[in-house]
Amino acid sequence: MNPVLKNSFATYLPPVNRYLRGLSFTDALQKRLAPSQEKAMHYSVDARGKRLRPILTIMAYRLLAEDWQRALPVAAAYELVHTYSLIHDDLPAMDDDDWRRGEPTNHKVFGEALAILTGDALLTEAFRLLAEEVEAAAAVIVKLVATLARVAGGNGMVGGQVIDILSEGVVIKENTKDNENQEDLLELLETLHRRKTGAMITGALLAGADLAGCDNDLRLRLEKFGRLIGLAFQVADDILDEVGDQASLGKDIGSDRELDKLTFVSLFGLEGARQKLLELKQQALLQIEPLGAKAIELKALAEYIVDRDR
Amino acid sequence: MNPVLKNSFATYLPPVNRYLRGLSFTDALQKRLAPSQEKAMHYSVDARGKRLRPILTIMAYRLLAEDWQRALPVAAAYELVHTYSLIHDDLPAMDDDDWRRGEPTNHKVFGEALAILTGDALLTEAFRLLAEEVEAAAAVIVKLVATLARVAGGNGMVGGQVIDILSEGVVIKENTKDNENQEDLLELLETLHRRKTGAMITGALLAGADLAGCDNDLRLRLEKFGRLIGLAFQVADDILDEVGDQASLGKDIGSDRELDKLTFVSLFGLEGARQKLLELKQQALLQIEPLGAKAIELKALAEYIVDRDR
Repeated sequence: MNPVLKNSFATYLPPVNRYLRGLSFTDALQKRLAPSQEKAMHYSVDARGKRLRPILTIMAYRLLAEDWQRALPVAAAYELVHTYSLIHDDLPAMDDDDWRRGEPTNHKVFGEALAILTGDALLTEAFRLLAEEVEAAAAVIVKLVATLARVAGGNGMVGGQVIDILSEGVVIKENTKDNENQEDLLELLETLHRRKTGAMITGALLAGADLAGCDNDLRLRLEKFGRLIGLAFQVADDILDEVGDQASLGKDIGSDRELDKLTFVSLFGLEGARQKLLELKQQALLQIEPLGAKAIELKALAEYIVDRDR
Repeated sequence: MNPVLKNSFATYLPPVNRYLRGLSFTDALQKRLAPSQEKAMHYSVDARGKRLRPILTIMAYRLLAEDWQRALPVAAAYELVHTYSLIHDDLPAMDDDDWRRGEPTNHKVFGEALAILTGDALLTEAFRLLAEEVEAAAAVIVKLVATLARVAGGNGMVGGQVIDILSEGVVIKENTKDNENQEDLLELLETLHRRKTGAMITGALLAGADLAGCDNDLRLRLEKFGRLIGLAFQVADDILDEVGDQASLGKDIGSDRELDKLTFVSLFGLEGARQKLLELKQQALLQIEPLGAKAIELKALAEYIVDRDR
């Protein structure tokens, strides 16, 4: 890993994890009457994750200000929303996953009913953090709430998940010659991932920048940068599913192909997807180039997302 | 129905329903790629409901100001959160209900996966409404967000639902002589309902009052009033389940007793529950008495909640 990024992770990850672990989700009465609720919430929040969204919030904040600890409640709000989405995605009615990051999924440990409610509570708690724990002018907090609601909601993350579920029947015939159909499928695929993953990645960046008081020009650059690295993240995922190392990924390889899933690899082939990934990275770096040395962390992160092996 | 209340419902209900029906939850692209998402969201939001929470928001607002249409986005936010909670409560993993208000439940029409995501999207949209659609000072909006997150979250509505699920095994022996145990059970039952139903009823009142700029004294009165009518609402429910008219209720009578459910009737007996209901009503009316003629609507509503036959 790039030494810049290694240093960033070493600086930001422990405080982010400490902040998340330190959250008390339920009051004394709730803890007494429903002791497993706090456990179920922390079970998923405390699980080892990349913490990509909190890191993005902090890096965007640091483009403008040094006291990045002030961004922790905002960073945590994004991680809570990400966590709730994983809990709901893993449910039997959704992806029906028993394992996540080497541990049983929330509903396997606490049951489906509590897992649904745990997700609901985490989503709600994210908005409470923004409204009650962030030190900022009220107008800034309102902006943070609006952005989170947009990127997490029916036209954002949840919308992407809906498209994903509804398009599951879409099967890619190998060597399709129907160009018009390929364009439709590319729009479907890009919108799906722009909303399902890209929106929250962009939102996390914007939240950090908004908290630090960014201007419109920077906001637009970060929005484009977020979109591009969000999409790159997914293209890299699709390539890794095809050629990655099973052991370092910790999941089965080739599962997308077996399921006839619509992916960037199924649409463009392996070489085409690699080309697409390179283009996305170059476009993303172009967006933050004018920021100069300040953007060194975001640059390293974009490269890491593209070049990662898991 | 009391003529005051009849007039209030006739005034507020059509604009509330119009506002809810008029909401566009998804953008043009989402509507094209996932057409059933908008349908699934409106299916439950547009269903005939009492609209108790929006009415409470408007009535509380009118204690202080006349232009109650300004409260519509806030009122709608509370109804969206209430609607999402019904969708998730009806899921097979939760109460497993196939019918609600004479119509198939959301998951029976759109499938479980979409029903879960529809609930998630409605909860998120409620916060977007507060942040983007309410005309008020930013500090007021932050207060509205904080209150909604508190009353809907892990120590509020979701917390009450968790207690409900975890305490399902609690069976009431008839004529229990164990007074200490009865006190524990009463605390469990009251906390459950104070959080599951009472919190959102209180929140809806506070939101209307906060939007209109209420002072601390009024806020405290409304908080107590909301708690009391929220609990009264549930005691009345328990009594109706025992002695109500099956046809006007639209649901089976005696189901709580058959299920050995912990209710105010199982705990106090029918007469004891009626006595409790009367006490709650008197305490509630006492809270708003100092407000004088302005509180005529809230008084009528409190009486309606207690004396209703369905």
